[in-house]
Amino acid sequence: MKNIATPTVPSVGRLRPLGVREVTLKPGFWQQRQETNRTASLDHIEHWLEKAGWLANFEVGPAARRGREFSDTEIYKLLEAMSWEYGRTGDADLEMRYKDIVRRVAAAQEPDGYLNTNFGRSGQAPRYSDLEWGHEIYSYGHLIQAAVARARVAGLDDELVRVAVRAADHVCEMFGPDGIVAVCGHPEIEPALVELYRVTGERRYLEQAQLFVERRGTQVLADIEFGRSYFQDDVPTREAEVLRGHAVRATYLAAGTVDVAVETGDTELLDAVTRQWHNTVARRTYLTGGMGSRHQDEAFGEDFMLPPDRAYSETCAAIGSVMLSWRLLLAHGDAAYGDLIERTLFNVIATSPADDGRGFFYTNTLHQRTPGTEPEPDVLVPRAASSLRAPWFAVSCCPTNLARTYASLAAYLATVDDDGLQIHQYAAATINTDRFGCEIETQYPDQGRIAVRITEAPDSPWTLSLRIPHWATGATLDGRPVEPGWAHLHRQFAPGDVVVLDLPVQPRITAPDPRIDAIRGCVAVERGPIVLCAESVDLPEGVDLNALRVLPHAEERDGAVVVTGRTVQPPAHGWPYGIALEPAITGTVDVPLRPYHRWARRGPSTMRVWLPLADGRTE
Amino acid sequence: MKNIATPTVPSVGRLRPLGVREVTLKPGFWQQRQETNRTASLDHIEHWLEKAGWLANFEVGPAARRGREFSDTEIYKLLEAMSWEYGRTGDADLEMRYKDIVRRVAAAQEPDGYLNTNFGRSGQAPRYSDLEWGHEIYSYGHLIQAAVARARVAGLDDELVRVAVRAADHVCEMFGPDGIVAVCGHPEIEPALVELYRVTGERRYLEQAQLFVERRGTQVLADIEFGRSYFQDDVPTREAEVLRGHAVRATYLAAGTVDVAVETGDTELLDAVTRQWHNTVARRTYLTGGMGSRHQDEAFGEDFMLPPDRAYSETCAAIGSVMLSWRLLLAHGDAAYGDLIERTLFNVIATSPADDGRGFFYTNTLHQRTPGTEPEPDVLVPRAASSLRAPWFAVSCCPTNLARTYASLAAYLATVDDDGLQIHQYAAATINTDRFGCEIETQYPDQGRIAVRITEAPDSPWTLSLRIPHWATGATLDGRPVEPGWAHLHRQFAPGDVVVLDLPVQPRITAPDPRIDAIRGCVAVERGPIVLCAESVDLPEGVDLNALRVLPHAEERDGAVVVTGRTVQPPAHGWPYGIALEPAITGTVDVPLRPYHRWARRGPSTMRVWLPLADGRTE
Repeated sequence: MKNIATPTVPSVGRLRPLGVREVTLKPGFWQQRQETNRTASLDHIEHWLEKAGWLANFEVGPAARRGREFSDTEIYKLLEAMSWEYGRTGDADLEMRYKDIVRRVAAAQEPDGYLNTNFGRSGQAPRYSDLEWGHEIYSYGHLIQAAVARARVAGLDDELVRVAVRAADHVCEMFGPDGIVAVCGHPEIEPALVELYRVTGERRYLEQAQLFVERRGTQVLADIEFGRSYFQDDVPTREAEVLRGHAVRATYLAAGTVDVAVETGDTELLDAVTRQWHNTVARRTYLTGGMGSRHQDEAFGEDFMLPPDRAYSETCAAIGSVMLSWRLLLAHGDAAYGDLIERTLFNVIATSPADDGRGFFYTNTLHQRTPGTEPEPDVLVPRAASSLRAPWFAVSCCPTNLARTYASLAAYLATVDDDGLQIHQYAAATINTDRFGCEIETQYPDQGRIAVRITEAPDSPWTLSLRIPHWATGATLDGRPVEPGWAHLHRQFAPGDVVVLDLPVQPRITAPDPRIDAIRGCVAVERGPIVLCAESVDLPEGVDLNALRVLPHAEERDGAVVVTGRTVQPPAHGWPYGIALEPAITGTVDVPLRPYHRWARRGPSTMRVWLPLADGRTE
Repeated sequence: MKNIATPTVPSVGRLRPLGVREVTLKPGFWQQRQETNRTASLDHIEHWLEKAGWLANFEVGPAARRGREFSDTEIYKLLEAMSWEYGRTGDADLEMRYKDIVRRVAAAQEPDGYLNTNFGRSGQAPRYSDLEWGHEIYSYGHLIQAAVARARVAGLDDELVRVAVRAADHVCEMFGPDGIVAVCGHPEIEPALVELYRVTGERRYLEQAQLFVERRGTQVLADIEFGRSYFQDDVPTREAEVLRGHAVRATYLAAGTVDVAVETGDTELLDAVTRQWHNTVARRTYLTGGMGSRHQDEAFGEDFMLPPDRAYSETCAAIGSVMLSWRLLLAHGDAAYGDLIERTLFNVIATSPADDGRGFFYTNTLHQRTPGTEPEPDVLVPRAASSLRAPWFAVSCCPTNLARTYASLAAYLATVDDDGLQIHQYAAATINTDRFGCEIETQYPDQGRIAVRITEAPDSPWTLSLRIPHWATGATLDGRPVEPGWAHLHRQFAPGDVVVLDLPVQPRITAPDPRIDAIRGCVAVERGPIVLCAESVDLPEGVDLNALRVLPHAEERDGAVVVTGRTVQPPAHGWPYGIALEPAITGTVDVPLRPYHRWARRGPSTMRVWLPLADGRTE
């Protein structure tokens, strides 16, 4: 099995991934963020893991344990991020820090492979006594993913890999065909075990993942207040029509199910997840690519239940969505998966981190009605309570999840197949595979011009494929019009050849499906892959963002996107329902729009992605 | 102090309440529901309290205790309901059941007055070790309210009254000026202690209530994930501008604050709550009168954050709202308080119970997108998880809260002052005070004619005041036009005199304040005090309620209210955002509308209160 330094390496599929050593980001939108992650976020995370005591949990007695039941996984996700960074840069300091943490983790593993700081010791609940909420098997999943990353950048002879293999063997022993008939309340072990199979060749890891996938949905978990759909135990994955329940759980499970389906040749299962992806994208996804509308259970809402205010759109769910879309892209090769990945990267994953890499959005609302308050720098903020980026959370899954995603980001740019090279995401980058080489030069997404300069090519015709985003009506390739989907160039390229793709990134008005009740009569403005928003700090003094109506036309002026707004006088009354309450228009104002991912970087503000139309219509 | 058989008896105020023996419902809308409560719901509740083990908690050891930390209060609310019913009917069987339960409760009280089955015994958390979530003082509140009800119908010489006095003394001892500086995470003790003061004359109960009111908002409770606004400990009540946080907590606290303000002559405090009421009604209240938009923390949303789908609108919050409005009505005499009470009674409190009195809505959504599933009859349903009326809940505050409200309902119909009689709510009823007597004959709200026949009157001129609802444009009194607000008739009435009020109950179109984003471009239809809704079971086969657009005109045809709807063809696409997605109109259909309180009584269905307009405008 080929060991590419990349998160997922299916043994079959339409496309084959490249690794973080084959694709290198060059200065630009994404490289800047990857550098901030490397130079600031990794430190910041390590600092907080020590400060909050979650790292020390591997050393202290059970009475001194701190943090939530799943806090071990934040250490594992940091180790995964460090592994990808080490693979990319070979940084010796990072390698030392990695080894030090691994040593501390490894010392806590029990002789039978069990590893969890929250269960099984004196004064703690017994092992596997709370599969609904305990996150024990989930924790192994992140442990294994970290070890897979390490194995792919440094080989199998590694302490963390040995720890993860012992843990995986323990899981197969405990929950195998003759073991406890159960699944974990939080999926994650499924993609991890398949990847461990891919990296070790041990087929029983695949079989165990398959068993977990097949068991889920047969109501092996107890019912809970949120219902069994919360952890996808309501309907067998094979039969479900759409993603539902907790959005992170749902996307992780779907990703692992694709892995199982691909490796076992189970096309029915692959079709099921493919269908769920399409239905979820058509009915349960925010304009930003964000998933999950509900705060209460961090869950998908029903079809078209997509309120912009208090949109949950958890950062981790966006990462789960990218994991899922990427696996489907490798399996099927459809450009649509790359479209959603692009949207999600630019509008959720780029939105969450602070510019200094030391603060994060946990949720990503599309409408902030009242200015938030800056969290105190040294305080562990409750989960999604902060409306501004916070340094750390009581449930701090998102920062470490971002860290591993940014560290492996280059792996999502391109793939190969027998026929050539496919470029899915546009960023300044260098690609060097065993057959192809190219330089991608672009200021995307600020500008729509993408130049691909061939640096190495086989001595025979091959196909260079470029994804044309679904919104890119009017795109040209070397001056010739191309349609959204795939643009294929089949020829014998020579080093020095340059291909130029021009994507139209002028602002455009976007209207919602009329079934999305919460944004009826509103439009959004997009520019290329970027969702724009209006933010109170850009408005003249005294203009209330929530008392604005816009005309459905946006234009670029001096580098900024502007829509014309009408200010309105809100009605004054003691009861907000009655006859003809439509407010009077009092003036006209230019409303500058900025990328959504830039919002809340200038202090507390109000913000809207969806802007009510002045005439109440969307057309 | 005069002991009227009514929930709240302020010693000063603009109006004086009447009791359940002075106002008697006659056959009609409310009497039917009160009878169902008496004959079915009280049995049903007692049955479930035994079945779930919550009543037995007062007898069993701590290890055998069942239910949530606040389950004791369901027994107290049942005792309060039984007291009002006994006061009204003198039912001997009810009296026996009451005494039997009181005996079981009383046996569990500790010698120092402490009474709570969830704390303080071996294997339980220590007393008052979790004031944020423990509900211990809250539980005393409901105990005391039950005892006050009993004292007002049967006098102070009663076992439950003695238990409650001992508990109140214990609270004053523990949390008085020299005791623990704390409040309870759930307000409720505040109105209870003031009422106990009113019934016993013991001023220290009032002072303790005052102390609790003044302490709250000074951050005496620990911070929690939802923030301190959840239990109103964010801002002193005296300074707050609007109700916020958990809606039941907020309304109970505000009710108790009015009680304290009135008894202590603290006009600043009374003004504060009055201001909060006005702001809450203008910005944070559903068309139904329901309060609370958020599932996660059962809380008020921000101003104008009133999504109809997944509206929380907890039944208990509606009861808290009536408690609050009633106290402000007694203090100020403004008709607006009666308006909100009427709206809340007809559209939330009448909505919750099943026709047979053995099922309840916990939440009261204004938009059901997918049909719910019938809860199993013998299963304790998790809190708000059911979208149909359920027999009992793991958190079962609403059924017992409704029981005490229905049992005391007649008390909210009318008041007196030195000058005469005020009628606030219209229902077929008999009123007999020490000075005035009348019969109210009406089919309200089905019909708008209300006839008040004087049966007893003093020998001098006095004023009969009738509330003209804010929506009742065109109302007439004895044929003469009257304006919304108060209609006063000052004269010397003679027995046999009849006054006829005609309220216009033809259907009317209601548009929302444009700041309520979630219902932009929609209208609702109301008829008199009744909010109407469209329900899928009334639509022709194949017509999807969520793919309908209506014309802004409603008319009554053969006794039913009908609007004209356009059926539309939803767009087919893989991504629900783009250009010109407005659906094509495919046909015209009559959409019958029914009272919202009648919805979901014919099996699972979808439902909308707010209907999108065919032309996208509200005017």
